[in-house]
Amino acid sequence: MIVKRIDSGLLENLVKQILTRAGVSKNESAIIAESLVHAELSGCPSHGISKLSDYLKRLDENLIEKTTTITTVRDTFTTAVLDANNGWGQVASQRAVDLAIEKARNYGSAWISVRNSNHNGRCGYWASKIANAGMVGIAMTNTSPVMVAYGSSESTLGTNPIAISVPSSSGNPISLDMSTSHQARGKITLAHKKGESIPKGWAVDAQGLPTTDPSDALAGSLLPMGGHKGSGLAIMIDILSGVMSGALFGSHIPRFYDDALPQQIGHLFVAMDISTMMPLDEFTDRISQKEKETRNSKPAPGREQVYMPGDLEQKKYMENRKAGVPIPEEILLELKHLAAKNQVAHLYKELIN
Amino acid sequence: MIVKRIDSGLLENLVKQILTRAGVSKNESAIIAESLVHAELSGCPSHGISKLSDYLKRLDENLIEKTTTITTVRDTFTTAVLDANNGWGQVASQRAVDLAIEKARNYGSAWISVRNSNHNGRCGYWASKIANAGMVGIAMTNTSPVMVAYGSSESTLGTNPIAISVPSSSGNPISLDMSTSHQARGKITLAHKKGESIPKGWAVDAQGLPTTDPSDALAGSLLPMGGHKGSGLAIMIDILSGVMSGALFGSHIPRFYDDALPQQIGHLFVAMDISTMMPLDEFTDRISQKEKETRNSKPAPGREQVYMPGDLEQKKYMENRKAGVPIPEEILLELKHLAAKNQVAHLYKELIN
Repeated sequence: MIVKRIDSGLLENLVKQILTRAGVSKNESAIIAESLVHAELSGCPSHGISKLSDYLKRLDENLIEKTTTITTVRDTFTTAVLDANNGWGQVASQRAVDLAIEKARNYGSAWISVRNSNHNGRCGYWASKIANAGMVGIAMTNTSPVMVAYGSSESTLGTNPIAISVPSSSGNPISLDMSTSHQARGKITLAHKKGESIPKGWAVDAQGLPTTDPSDALAGSLLPMGGHKGSGLAIMIDILSGVMSGALFGSHIPRFYDDALPQQIGHLFVAMDISTMMPLDEFTDRISQKEKETRNSKPAPGREQVYMPGDLEQKKYMENRKAGVPIPEEILLELKHLAAKNQVAHLYKELIN
Repeated sequence: MIVKRIDSGLLENLVKQILTRAGVSKNESAIIAESLVHAELSGCPSHGISKLSDYLKRLDENLIEKTTTITTVRDTFTTAVLDANNGWGQVASQRAVDLAIEKARNYGSAWISVRNSNHNGRCGYWASKIANAGMVGIAMTNTSPVMVAYGSSESTLGTNPIAISVPSSSGNPISLDMSTSHQARGKITLAHKKGESIPKGWAVDAQGLPTTDPSDALAGSLLPMGGHKGSGLAIMIDILSGVMSGALFGSHIPRFYDDALPQQIGHLFVAMDISTMMPLDEFTDRISQKEKETRNSKPAPGREQVYMPGDLEQKKYMENRKAGVPIPEEILLELKHLAAKNQVAHLYKELIN
């Protein structure tokens, strides 16, 4: 697989221009482009540029609104329910994050639900935006059903990710961002393409039996991480994101790739202003101590280093910011095609030169 | 192992009387006894009556205060930090839960931290109390270091449990209550007593190498559930419970059994009033649908039933409420001894007749 390093600024501009030419407003395009390129920078290409062609396909098929009209369903001192009305997940999430920070600034804490939304990028991206405001940030979302509950043979759950972020003295939040599946579905697709088998524990076949065959796994379901614990967490995230917001949940969510229906998923964003509990610099001093004691703990045999949540993403971010983000040839071809289709072929050329 | 079914009401009264005779106030004794017997009823004996002799030992050694004096360190609209001043974990947790519910009732949501506390029973017990008020309840605590972070060979983490509970239409909350370790340390102690080996993935030895020998495991560390994901979750729970509250955290926490020092652990309780987002009966209707769709999903081959979080605990609770809680002979002997020592031998006799 040929991979090319691409300047993240040029890439972000190209994505923004493609979206704008496709009919999305400049402001919304900028929000979406930033989220996708940030995922690439952080070494999470599954939530990066590869999503752009899927987004535009769904836009073409009128499965998502060009313009995000956010309506307020409920609004209290510290809680709100926003309806994204089938607009862009990132645009609704940015609004929800801003509102969570504002309410938490005024009252100490806030919970903002979003219903009728779409794919919104990485949860850690949103939780970290809250952490950058000096707060504990939590972000979660439900997703289309590709995973069994513990002991089940039917996909009634998404990989339902959750992120928890807190500020640190370095300026980069400590950020845990994890799906509740044992492994990403993309890893199984990749093994399938390469003709490799997958480890036990990743997936079950359509009958609910453990499998190491990626094609059986793709016809079956992902397994939750940590058995009944990950399964329980995925169920609670479905409840907090989907059931409580008034969005679709569980097996009712149309599949992102296969179903020609709006997804109507739900997100939840929680913020808590740390300075209401202790001075922020006292908190970040204590976090520095926690970081030091974790990173300096003796690695297990064969390991080089113990990491804090988000360390590896941050390392990639710094590296990719300098050297450019690594984009595989097939994604570049998609970009080339999308650029041409949307009359910004010159920006693509600029990108690869 | 001989096990006797004991009436939960009589048991709770005995525990309460033992604590009162040991110098704990009637009110605090009642709170602690209820928490321990509730754990027994729910089929979680690790957080049940077996803890009583440990509690009384720590009380005898002046490692915990007889009377819990709770001071308010910070108090804002929706957040507060309470100092338990080395009093009873359950008493401080009850106060924190009441305060979380009160603030969430007034402002929609609340985060209450507790510092300088002690063992507070099951997190699910506290989260469910919040759920019983029509709210989302979250409870977490840090605990003494017995677990490695992912890739580490040193115990810098406790099993740091978290519980998330929401109300349901049955009146019994849907409640996820999980530690972040792959397996409880008690299971390794049990295997050690029986001379059995333990499965790979539970623990590492003192060098950080995977082990199936329970004595090596007990000299080593527990492994987090789900690899880096459970490890990350345990770190974030340590931060939210310990770092943010001003309690001890990580490897600084004295060990419950081995260290003659106050533990000074931290807890966090979060409440969110669901009726601020949608009418509570609409929420519980939607939860009923989620419950039905989960429990009615086709079990995997070899499985009888798919469960919602908390189903098994609830089943045990109903069974034990009727038939009595199953107490092993060795714990009964401890109780007999404690009853005699605290001049309530007659209550023990009543219990076993």
